[in-house]
Amino acid sequence: MSTTAAPRRATDPMTPEERLAQQGITLPDAPGPLGAYAPWVITGSLLMTSGQFPFVNGTLAYVGRIGGDLTPEQGYDAYRLAALNAVAQLKAAVGSLSRIRRVVRLEGTMQVAPGFRDGPVALNGASDLFNHAFAERGLHSRMIYTNPEMPLNSPVLLVVYAEVEP
Amino acid sequence: MSTTAAPRRATDPMTPEERLAQQGITLPDAPGPLGAYAPWVITGSLLMTSGQFPFVNGTLAYVGRIGGDLTPEQGYDAYRLAALNAVAQLKAAVGSLSRIRRVVRLEGTMQVAPGFRDGPVALNGASDLFNHAFAERGLHSRMIYTNPEMPLNSPVLLVVYAEVEP
Amino acid sequence: MSTTAAPRRATDPMTPEERLAQQGITLPDAPGPLGAYAPWVITGSLLMTSGQFPFVNGTLAYVGRIGGDLTPEQGYDAYRLAALNAVAQLKAAVGSLSRIRRVVRLEGTMQVAPGFRDGPVALNGASDLFNHAFAERGLHSRMIYTNPEMPLNSPVLLVVYAEVEP
Repeated sequence: MSTTAAPRRATDPMTPEERLAQQGITLPDAPGPLGAYAPWVITGSLLMTSGQFPFVNGTLAYVGRIGGDLTPEQGYDAYRLAALNAVAQLKAAVGSLSRIRRVVRLEGTMQVAPGFRDGPVALNGASDLFNHAFAERGLHSRMIYTNPEMPLNSPVLLVVYAEVEP
Repeated sequence: MSTTAAPRRATDPMTPEERLAQQGITLPDAPGPLGAYAPWVITGSLLMTSGQFPFVNGTLAYVGRIGGDLTPEQGYDAYRLAALNAVAQLKAAVGSLSRIRRVVRLEGTMQVAPGFRDGPVALNGASDLFNHAFAERGLHSRMIYTNPEMPLNSPVLLVVYAEVEP
Repeated sequence: MSTTAAPRRATDPMTPEERLAQQGITLPDAPGPLGAYAPWVITGSLLMTSGQFPFVNGTLAYVGRIGGDLTPEQGYDAYRLAALNAVAQLKAAVGSLSRIRRVVRLEGTMQVAPGFRDGPVALNGASDLFNHAFAERGLHSRMIYTNPEMPLNSPVLLVVYAEVEP
């Protein structure tokens, strides 16, 4: 159980930061909140983020409804971007992503055109990013919602729950 | 505090499996996920399921909107079926339902016709099943949502949180 | 770590009850549930409420859609009232609000008119109340939802997660 000179376990050949960098992904700064709340909270070993938007440099990369204004592929990419911001929140919360024991849950809420029911495919944009960055520690439970009107006309919002080292 | 030769406590004369069997209910196999995620996760002593559908043998027993395509009674039954699948997930997660210390929370999301506001009555289809199967350990907190479009045109989705033995 | 004769810490000059009273706010009785569930549950150190309505003496203070039937300011006030009922649930759960270690999360669900996207401003009605009553222990994560139809035609529902003393 020595923790000296052992920054990595044999089962963890790469850190989440390294896996993202390998794909040319640089983590953004963690975005601030839209109101009188915090972007994340830790209670016990459970970290919960507030709703994350597909911000790139402070601007929404997409607006509108998936299946109408936006293609399902753009919905997938919007969730990928929201997931990157969520990873940035996790890192802001715990410093090093190696302190994330596992990703516990993703909750995706999206604004869709009438009759659009391929939400699970769009939400895979977030699931795939977490599964890639955290490998076997990324496997998560998931819930999906559609909402008629979303803040800033964002097509997606993403909540992440993770288990952290105490 | 001996745990030998005492499979049951005096206050627990029947197991959840026995209570369901007594009503002629056979638990289904736990359904797989609709995307790149897990059907349940345990963090600490908290078990969280992903969204559960009213599947019977891999097919949705109901589709459409409660209060339009479906009666409130069908909505109640759809929630009962989703709850059975959720119980199957709990059992898949912990082996024996006696290892569920208590049901903590139900979150029901439903697809409704305009003006339908009797969601709490429909969601009782899930609450009643959990209250019956788990008796006093089934009493849960609850939240209800309506969503404009749901995956597979399912009328209901159900999330369950439970406290499990470590 | 003595707990005798030390009802308050130096860093906590006022209790949440005192902060509310200072503003002339009397906590209501904690409302009962709308179905076969409990108004709150504690699992480990985590307290979760069921959805809270803007009830005043058992009647909804507001009904309808924010941005249509109701102004954003009325939406803010509806969330303030739902938050008061949520604080009443926390007190019913733990007796003294000083046993709330911190407010962990608010989840606000609202019924809005088409095109209304200022939900975060309305939800600040709940955030501001918790931030005031619990001071630095009130800072919370947050998620926002809109739903097409809500129980009792309520404009808002509020869920609160809090960390409690064991």
